[in-house]
Amino acid sequence: MDSDFGIPRELSPLQQLRSQYQPELPPCLQGTTVRVELGDGTTVSEASDSHIIARAFPHTLGQPLAHFLRETAKVSDAHIITQLPSIRVGIVFCGRQAPGGHNVIWGLYEALKVHNAKSTLLGFLGGSEGLFAQKTLEITDDILQTYKNQGGYDLLGRTKDQIRTTEQVNAALKACIDLKLDGLVIIGGVTSNTDAAHLAEFFAEAKCSTKVVGVPVTTNGDLKNQFVEANVGFDTICKVNSQLISNACTDALSAEKYYYFIRLMGRKHSHVALECTLQSHPNMVILGEEVAASKLTIFDISKQICDAVQARAGQDKNHGVILIPEGIIESIPEVYALLKEIHGLLREGLLLHPESDDSAQLSQIETEKLLAYLVETEMNKRLKEGTYKGKKFNAICHFFGYQARGSLPSKFDCDYAYAMMTVKNWSQNAGSTSTSIGRPAIHPAMVDLKGKAYELLRQNADKFLMEDLYRNPGPLQYDGPGADAKAVSLCVEDQDYMGRIKKLQEYLDQVRTIVKPGCSQDVLKAALSVMASVTDVLTTISSSSNGGQQTA
Amino acid sequence: MDSDFGIPRELSPLQQLRSQYQPELPPCLQGTTVRVELGDGTTVSEASDSHIIARAFPHTLGQPLAHFLRETAKVSDAHIITQLPSIRVGIVFCGRQAPGGHNVIWGLYEALKVHNAKSTLLGFLGGSEGLFAQKTLEITDDILQTYKNQGGYDLLGRTKDQIRTTEQVNAALKACIDLKLDGLVIIGGVTSNTDAAHLAEFFAEAKCSTKVVGVPVTTNGDLKNQFVEANVGFDTICKVNSQLISNACTDALSAEKYYYFIRLMGRKHSHVALECTLQSHPNMVILGEEVAASKLTIFDISKQICDAVQARAGQDKNHGVILIPEGIIESIPEVYALLKEIHGLLREGLLLHPESDDSAQLSQIETEKLLAYLVETEMNKRLKEGTYKGKKFNAICHFFGYQARGSLPSKFDCDYAYAMMTVKNWSQNAGSTSTSIGRPAIHPAMVDLKGKAYELLRQNADKFLMEDLYRNPGPLQYDGPGADAKAVSLCVEDQDYMGRIKKLQEYLDQVRTIVKPGCSQDVLKAALSVMASVTDVLTTISSSSNGGQQTA
Repeated sequence: MDSDFGIPRELSPLQQLRSQYQPELPPCLQGTTVRVELGDGTTVSEASDSHIIARAFPHTLGQPLAHFLRETAKVSDAHIITQLPSIRVGIVFCGRQAPGGHNVIWGLYEALKVHNAKSTLLGFLGGSEGLFAQKTLEITDDILQTYKNQGGYDLLGRTKDQIRTTEQVNAALKACIDLKLDGLVIIGGVTSNTDAAHLAEFFAEAKCSTKVVGVPVTTNGDLKNQFVEANVGFDTICKVNSQLISNACTDALSAEKYYYFIRLMGRKHSHVALECTLQSHPNMVILGEEVAASKLTIFDISKQICDAVQARAGQDKNHGVILIPEGIIESIPEVYALLKEIHGLLREGLLLHPESDDSAQLSQIETEKLLAYLVETEMNKRLKEGTYKGKKFNAICHFFGYQARGSLPSKFDCDYAYAMMTVKNWSQNAGSTSTSIGRPAIHPAMVDLKGKAYELLRQNADKFLMEDLYRNPGPLQYDGPGADAKAVSLCVEDQDYMGRIKKLQEYLDQVRTIVKPGCSQDVLKAALSVMASVTDVLTTISSSSNGGQQTA
Repeated sequence: MDSDFGIPRELSPLQQLRSQYQPELPPCLQGTTVRVELGDGTTVSEASDSHIIARAFPHTLGQPLAHFLRETAKVSDAHIITQLPSIRVGIVFCGRQAPGGHNVIWGLYEALKVHNAKSTLLGFLGGSEGLFAQKTLEITDDILQTYKNQGGYDLLGRTKDQIRTTEQVNAALKACIDLKLDGLVIIGGVTSNTDAAHLAEFFAEAKCSTKVVGVPVTTNGDLKNQFVEANVGFDTICKVNSQLISNACTDALSAEKYYYFIRLMGRKHSHVALECTLQSHPNMVILGEEVAASKLTIFDISKQICDAVQARAGQDKNHGVILIPEGIIESIPEVYALLKEIHGLLREGLLLHPESDDSAQLSQIETEKLLAYLVETEMNKRLKEGTYKGKKFNAICHFFGYQARGSLPSKFDCDYAYAMMTVKNWSQNAGSTSTSIGRPAIHPAMVDLKGKAYELLRQNADKFLMEDLYRNPGPLQYDGPGADAKAVSLCVEDQDYMGRIKKLQEYLDQVRTIVKPGCSQDVLKAALSVMASVTDVLTTISSSSNGGQQTA
């Protein structure tokens, strides 16, 4: 197996072109000088968790945020680093592959070499197993040639996803010590970054000098918070899926006799489904977060679809496209229990694919087929009763996921992943850390039902349902219109969190300047009174709105 | 329903760009002057069928082939047409939608207007039902604006696919007479073009002056013969599917624990699967034509896959991608019968999608799941017995078809479809007409197991199987590398059939010039002797090789 890693391979003409693409670095990361401003320590998102988290992360919690500054930035107390010692860094793919993963390696390699040509980057072969067994491949420019801007994780491979048990963390520690690593970079999603946070704490406790860095690379888009606005891979996945959903929309509109029930990979939360809806405008989407918030049963959902089918038939429309996030099933407890039982019974059946392991379970539950069946049964009933007068209901079911995961990464993901190596130490400060059966873990971010992306969906949902405003973004392009398109949800959401934190600090500084010793009694009184009520208001809001902070 | 046809719609940036693309016409179709050379009448491919075909098509069989000539061509007896009267033409989408269909309408519209601005093009709304009911939409440049180079059939829609019963052909006749049509253009696949051929004969018999024209637009790529080298839509479908297959390959190689069983839409024959294999190099493909030729049972096929899995595991490869054409099931009679029975039994089951109608049956049979199950069972058995020592076998099943059909058409399909309107009267001369339960029908072309495309596959099959030479052509591009790529099978197959017919005629002319009255006895004797044996040889070959001619 290992002999195949890192070998050069033949690229198609498009792959060749892409391999020559040079991602652009943000200004603060260009050049050989690093300018860092250390900000405040961070707070936890839920005040009630702070004790548990403080106990779990005594060495790593509350570190200052590091801001990288562009050359022209005027910050008096910036740390300016012009010479870096040669360092040794290990990097490992953990968890499901996402487009752009290779660029994290490439970007890190270039950054290390730019600062000191003697620095070394070691790739662990075969995921965390390679880390435990110390199987490495030294990354060189030659090795990277046919992997730059390419999809998959096949440069290094990945297998098991966990670094959790005592045996595993000890093996990881031993590997870092044996290989004299200054840093260990873990590329992965929510689970892997939780592991990274715990590993960092474990290393600090063990006085191991290896810094652990988690890089949020996941197609689910659920590793979001105030500091991490997007995940590597999400943009590509949503574009590839939107292309396919749009094709199904065009197909539905041409044939005028099918309803497509399309289930989308994306784990528990519905970020992928929401983004794809905003990109391709199918008739309907049912978000897991909506189902949970409204406590809908499977029959509620099915009835909702049936009513939509009936309303559309009233306008002579006997086709449609409905998106179903794979995670929706977890939001309907009674169905989740039922399906588990059915799957058990059918495991010996002929046509049902057996589950491979626990983690694959969600993608194996064919919710779209169950819903299509329930809707068909109900529409046939309504047809007989005469309440529904449209064509016989016809569903075609799809599951989109695996076929998008291996895609060539979009320009956005190429650029984002390439610049990603600088997000250091973020995992333990990410804010959304919380408890989960005794062990604090990063919670995957939900779709924020109060957020702007969801608001955009709600504003258009009726029109999407009835008017077939299908939008076809087309296949992923690397040139011309659409090539530089960003995710809709990324564009509409409030993103400048850190900018606003800065603005607030400016206000506070201004007040401090105005109210210096020597100012008039009136000014001081006014300031005291106003600030007392400001503090009051914020304290009240903070304690009541914590639940909504997670995805702010 | 009808009110929505032809309405302008909002296009995505990429769609907008594409709508401004102007396909290029071949030189012979440029300008306002038409130069036509009428060639020989055609022969039928199977001599034994000639009587039946002659009886079915007394008015339309054996018409001369029309060659369109470029301005610079020197052909003394070319018909040169510089002025065309204004004409009225109807056009209808029949059969399953294929990318590029809209461009046939656009191309025809432009051609009509270039030759006479007063000509009229009427689109029938809702397929053949619209034809029978005379529901039309006059095509204008305004209407075409947002449909140029776009996928789907939604400009006019399509419903039922048949023009066959007495009632139907009479309704079609009445529509053409009532609407005073000079031509009726039927856009469709094998079935629709068979209908077109019969309709042309019926019209000629009825002394209706409407000319019937069939245009081969089908994603299956099975409407091929000496005169029709490719079908509109096939290029796009293969590119979109190849993108997805390649993504699955990358995914397999990254995760190293899955076997993907991917079934491809394409009807009875395996053109799509062959082309996708040549584009994306998955580990294995099982063509229906191979199965039929070798009389393989489902267990033979399953064993073949198991042996491959075992051989790969011997090289530490526990992943792979296997393509399965949907039509393979028809090549295994015992399984076809079995599955029909199982489907009947399971129709009341919870998770199996019921068949919508006879024509959808093939796409509803989940052959990939059956094969994955058989392979899994066998591999588990071998694992227990110790003959197989790899990882536990894990399959993920996919069906790719619907999600490709509605795609934006590739540049090739845009250009080809736009120029297509000139393929007149081809259907009844297409050569592969043959009998089918009393009614002559166009046979879908099989993959030619003696052809160059298949040879290319055989040459590489072992390497593809063992060496993971996955090739990722990437998403469909409209600019840069890959944008002008043609189907591999189209490039490697002998395509210049008409060119070679011309070359032969030149040889015959040369012999005639050399052996004119006045030539020497020796020359005449030599010529006679040689031509006698040439005639002999060709007669022998002709009567023995007819079976292989269909896809030549």
